[in-house]
Amino acid sequence: MTRVTIYGDAISGNCLKVKWAARYLGVPFDWVEVGVASGATRTDAFLRINPFGQVPAAVFPDGRVLTQSNAILLALAEPAGDALIPVDPFERARMYAWLFWEQYSHETAIAVRRYRKAIQRLTDADIDPDLLPRGHRALAHMEASLAGDWFVGPAISLADIALVAYTRVADEGGFDLSAYPKVVAWVARVEGRLNILYPEGRV
Amino acid sequence: MTRVTIYGDAISGNCLKVKWAARYLGVPFDWVEVGVASGATRTDAFLRINPFGQVPAAVFPDGRVLTQSNAILLALAEPAGDALIPVDPFERARMYAWLFWEQYSHETAIAVRRYRKAIQRLTDADIDPDLLPRGHRALAHMEASLAGDWFVGPAISLADIALVAYTRVADEGGFDLSAYPKVVAWVARVEGRLNILYPEGRV
Repeated sequence: MTRVTIYGDAISGNCLKVKWAARYLGVPFDWVEVGVASGATRTDAFLRINPFGQVPAAVFPDGRVLTQSNAILLALAEPAGDALIPVDPFERARMYAWLFWEQYSHETAIAVRRYRKAIQRLTDADIDPDLLPRGHRALAHMEASLAGDWFVGPAISLADIALVAYTRVADEGGFDLSAYPKVVAWVARVEGRLNILYPEGRV
Repeated sequence: MTRVTIYGDAISGNCLKVKWAARYLGVPFDWVEVGVASGATRTDAFLRINPFGQVPAAVFPDGRVLTQSNAILLALAEPAGDALIPVDPFERARMYAWLFWEQYSHETAIAVRRYRKAIQRLTDADIDPDLLPRGHRALAHMEASLAGDWFVGPAISLADIALVAYTRVADEGGFDLSAYPKVVAWVARVEGRLNILYPEGRV
C-alpha cells in the first residue's frame, strides 16, 4: 500500500474512522484538515479534489480520488489480508451488512443529532424529534447484537471501526449510553485497540 | 453456491436487486413474498426469521440469515469471481463507494418519495419537500458520472444493479428523468442485461 492523502475534518467520525484504520494497518498517510463547518469543503481548491465537496476523500499517489468513508476503509484493509476483514465469506458478508447499516440507520440519527446539538448548537426544540428515538433504536440494536468482544466473529473488524466512530461521541448528541452497558464496554475496547485517545474527535 | 431463500417484497427495489443478482449469477433461489405495506414483515413468523422485521433477508441452507440488500449482493457475487465485482482493487473500491452512496444519498430520497407517493398515496403537500431536490441532486450526480456504458469500468457490476433498482421507478416518485438522458439509456441497458421486464417491480 502506497502513501495515501486523507482529506478530513478532525471532528467528523466518518473522517476519523479512515485515519484510525490507516494507522492500525500501518498504511502511511498524510492528513489534510478540511473543516466542514468553516466552509473549507466548498472552496475551489477542495472542489478540484472532490467535486462533490465531501470529506473524507482519499487521494492515492496516482491522483485517483475515492469517497465514502466505508468504501475507503475497505480499500485500505483489503490489501492487508485478515487484519480487519474476516476471511470467512459469511462473516465478511455480515461485516458488510454492519457497514451499510451504520451509514443508513446509525449515522443518519446519531451523527446528525450530534452535529445539530454540539456543532450547530441548536436547542433540542429545533432538532428533528425523530432523531432521538431513531438513535436509541440503533443503540439498542447494537446492545442486543453484541454477543462477544467484537461485532463480527472473534476479532476486531471494519464493522467495529465504522460503528465506534459516532457511538463514542453519542453523548454529544444527547444520547445517554448508560442503558447500553455492552456498548459502553465495547467502545472502550475498540478505543484501546485502535489507540484512540479520549479527547480525540470530541467537540 | 448453494440454494438461497430470499424473503422480499415484489415492489421493493432493495428486494428485487437481490433477485436480479441471483438470477444473473445463476445462483439457485426461492423467493418468499413478504409484503411491507400489508404488515407481513411484522408477523411472529417473519420476526422469527429476521427479528428486525426488514426485507430483503437472505437465508442460507445452514439457516444463517443475512440482511442489508447491498451486503447480500456482495455475498452472492463474491463466489462468482469477476462476474459482477471488478478485479482491479481501485475499481472494486469505487463500486463499494457507489453501493454506500446508493443507500445514503439515493434510496433515502428517491425510494422514500416513491413510497410516499405511489404506495402510501400521499399528496405532494404531505411529502417532505426536501425529497424532490435531494433526489434530483442524486440523479444529476449519476448523469455527470456516467462516462461509459456502466458505472464502474468496462462491465456491468453490482453498482449498476444497486443503482437501477429505484432509478427505474423514479417516475413513480414524481421524478421526471427526461433531463438525464444518459441515465435513461443506462436504465434500459441494465434492464436488458438483467432481463428485467418493464412492469416488474412497478406499483
